[in-house]
Amino acid sequence: MSTAHTAGPQVPLLADEEIFAAHEGGKLSVQTTASLQTARALSIAYTPGVARVCTAIATDPELVHRYTWTSRLVAVVSDGTAVLGLGNIGPRASLPVMEGKSALFKVFAGLDSIPLVLDTTDVEEIVETLVRLRPSFGAVNLEDVSAPRCFELERRLVEALDCPVMHDDQHGTAIVVLAALRGAAKATARELAQLRVVISGAGAAGVACTEILLAAGVTDVTVIDSRGIVHAAREDLTEVKAGLAARSNPGGRTAGLAEALHGADVFLGLSSATVAEDVIATMAPEAIVFALSNPNPEIHPEIAARHAAVVATGRSDYPNQINNVLAFPGVFRGALDSSARRITEAMKLAAAAAIADVLGDELDAQHIVPSPLDPRVAPAVAAAVAAAAVAEGVPGTLQR
Amino acid sequence: MSTAHTAGPQVPLLADEEIFAAHEGGKLSVQTTASLQTARALSIAYTPGVARVCTAIATDPELVHRYTWTSRLVAVVSDGTAVLGLGNIGPRASLPVMEGKSALFKVFAGLDSIPLVLDTTDVEEIVETLVRLRPSFGAVNLEDVSAPRCFELERRLVEALDCPVMHDDQHGTAIVVLAALRGAAKATARELAQLRVVISGAGAAGVACTEILLAAGVTDVTVIDSRGIVHAAREDLTEVKAGLAARSNPGGRTAGLAEALHGADVFLGLSSATVAEDVIATMAPEAIVFALSNPNPEIHPEIAARHAAVVATGRSDYPNQINNVLAFPGVFRGALDSSARRITEAMKLAAAAAIADVLGDELDAQHIVPSPLDPRVAPAVAAAVAAAAVAEGVPGTLQR
Repeated sequence: MSTAHTAGPQVPLLADEEIFAAHEGGKLSVQTTASLQTARALSIAYTPGVARVCTAIATDPELVHRYTWTSRLVAVVSDGTAVLGLGNIGPRASLPVMEGKSALFKVFAGLDSIPLVLDTTDVEEIVETLVRLRPSFGAVNLEDVSAPRCFELERRLVEALDCPVMHDDQHGTAIVVLAALRGAAKATARELAQLRVVISGAGAAGVACTEILLAAGVTDVTVIDSRGIVHAAREDLTEVKAGLAARSNPGGRTAGLAEALHGADVFLGLSSATVAEDVIATMAPEAIVFALSNPNPEIHPEIAARHAAVVATGRSDYPNQINNVLAFPGVFRGALDSSARRITEAMKLAAAAAIADVLGDELDAQHIVPSPLDPRVAPAVAAAVAAAAVAEGVPGTLQR
Repeated sequence: MSTAHTAGPQVPLLADEEIFAAHEGGKLSVQTTASLQTARALSIAYTPGVARVCTAIATDPELVHRYTWTSRLVAVVSDGTAVLGLGNIGPRASLPVMEGKSALFKVFAGLDSIPLVLDTTDVEEIVETLVRLRPSFGAVNLEDVSAPRCFELERRLVEALDCPVMHDDQHGTAIVVLAALRGAAKATARELAQLRVVISGAGAAGVACTEILLAAGVTDVTVIDSRGIVHAAREDLTEVKAGLAARSNPGGRTAGLAEALHGADVFLGLSSATVAEDVIATMAPEAIVFALSNPNPEIHPEIAARHAAVVATGRSDYPNQINNVLAFPGVFRGALDSSARRITEAMKLAAAAAIADVLGDELDAQHIVPSPLDPRVAPAVAAAVAAAAVAEGVPGTLQR
């Protein structure tokens, strides 16, 4: 899942001309915060003055966090294999998305960020490349890497790099979905543990959402892929899906989406597979429908609303927009602020709780999460994530 | 050689406190040029609008130059093996220099630039890493890589990457030295071809200066390394130095600096080896002394001036400051403006001529090159380099 906007009442149709004009020359720029306009300023920020700073870092490597930009620099890394809904369009064509992501890090969390797009799709080579570049950045936001490679790549990077690494299409999505489900449960006066959840899609987002929902206390999750319910008796499962099967589907269902949704409390759509109105109609009373496919939801929100108490989409022109920008800027800011070496499960859960809590009394069935543009969100998420990192103590936290 | 400033009449002694305060948080920042503060703006710069731009680039890859920042983005790449006069202090400790370099690209040439410092010193691995990252940037400024690895690394990168690559410690220095020697020759009413030149130092800068001086029409160059004159009969020469020996020392001298300088017109100091006043005193009338060692010149400029018509150093507190910032911003700007795939010898020679020409009638023995802060320089260099690239035609120029 990525941010979704389509034409609608709040967002007029975008003309190509306007879109391309806004992208002319790209969307990023590097500025210097040092003065370099006089001989004296140059001698402080560059030679000979800079040599004093270099020597200090050589003597005490931890000073690199204080005297360079790396401790607030997020590398947005992609190989361009799963870009938006466009698929494998390659690293060059993915760059406008990555520039946008870097821009969002700045606007919402005050972090600096650079896109690093790679002309290789080999997991081993990507890991090797980032290990060599490790001194250049402070954290890695993996973006738009295709499944199932994204699972191995993230796992390998977390092992290899002593800094925060997060595949946003997995965990950014999962955090925001959990926040939204908390909000929806609250709006309908229920607890997460009561809800039977059906997830359509077993890619990056589907896997991560399953994991975080189980970690948050949901006990009954059923996952559907293109061949039906993911269950242990299937012989066509990848390693990752076999893992899903072992932890999900406690009802032991073996058919497809229609069987799974019958009587379910929550539909979470994370693939482009549509779902028919009559299937949604079989869900339990006060159903919760998150139709997050981009740009076309699995079911139109107005149709879903006939049968559900809460409806959310990725669209900005309907209530309850579920957008990763609610999570990733604050998550990375909190991780970097607290010098965390990892983004742990506890930090992700804290981020989800912080998003849900921002609304307070403003929360209702039409407002289960804050607006993606709500300026309160990123600081709240950052503070919650940093606190969770600190609570986990030194083993998970890089001392600076 | 890098920019040199030491305490002196124009630059008061720098307090550590002031230097470190100026480096707090580093010297770079990424800004976004796109609006992201409203739902509509977000839908243009990010999803769903951005998908139109991605699709256009996927269809016509050349559009990446137009719709992303990469065509004006210079990667400042180092492994930290030869940083200023500090030696092999590693990639992290080199970062303040690289941030300064990136800042100079912005201030003097309007280019965006990011430091990429590498946790490997293996030439093969560095080449491989930059090849994988190729879609992320528009040009590579190699910085502070130790000799003789820097020669092979630059050669390999020029072969492997279809974009401008320049090791600034070699060619930036060489361009500015040639410009200054043109200025010194003009100030003393001589031609380059008349001058017998002695170069102290056979590292990155010494080798590149030898090459560019020969290319510019100087016919008599003698190079000195730590063991004396580099000549063909020596059995301890590296491949690079053997190449130097074959093209230099037409006088067939075999001893050391004192023998070489006797009657010479130009002393070009590019190592930390000092030279005594009585040796400088043996040079030809109207001698030209460039004592460029940092931060301590090979001979004090006031002492050299007793015996020389023109004296230059890397210091900002004496006349004729020779500083790479006169060259690299304009060279990369010209190469990127003209979509050049290579930085050729003709482009370097054009850059040197442009620097020398900026002064016009202002040129005299105390002003053989413009000030490093002269805002006329980078645009003049960029225009000259771009014109040289275009004159070399399509084979050397990337069509956009």
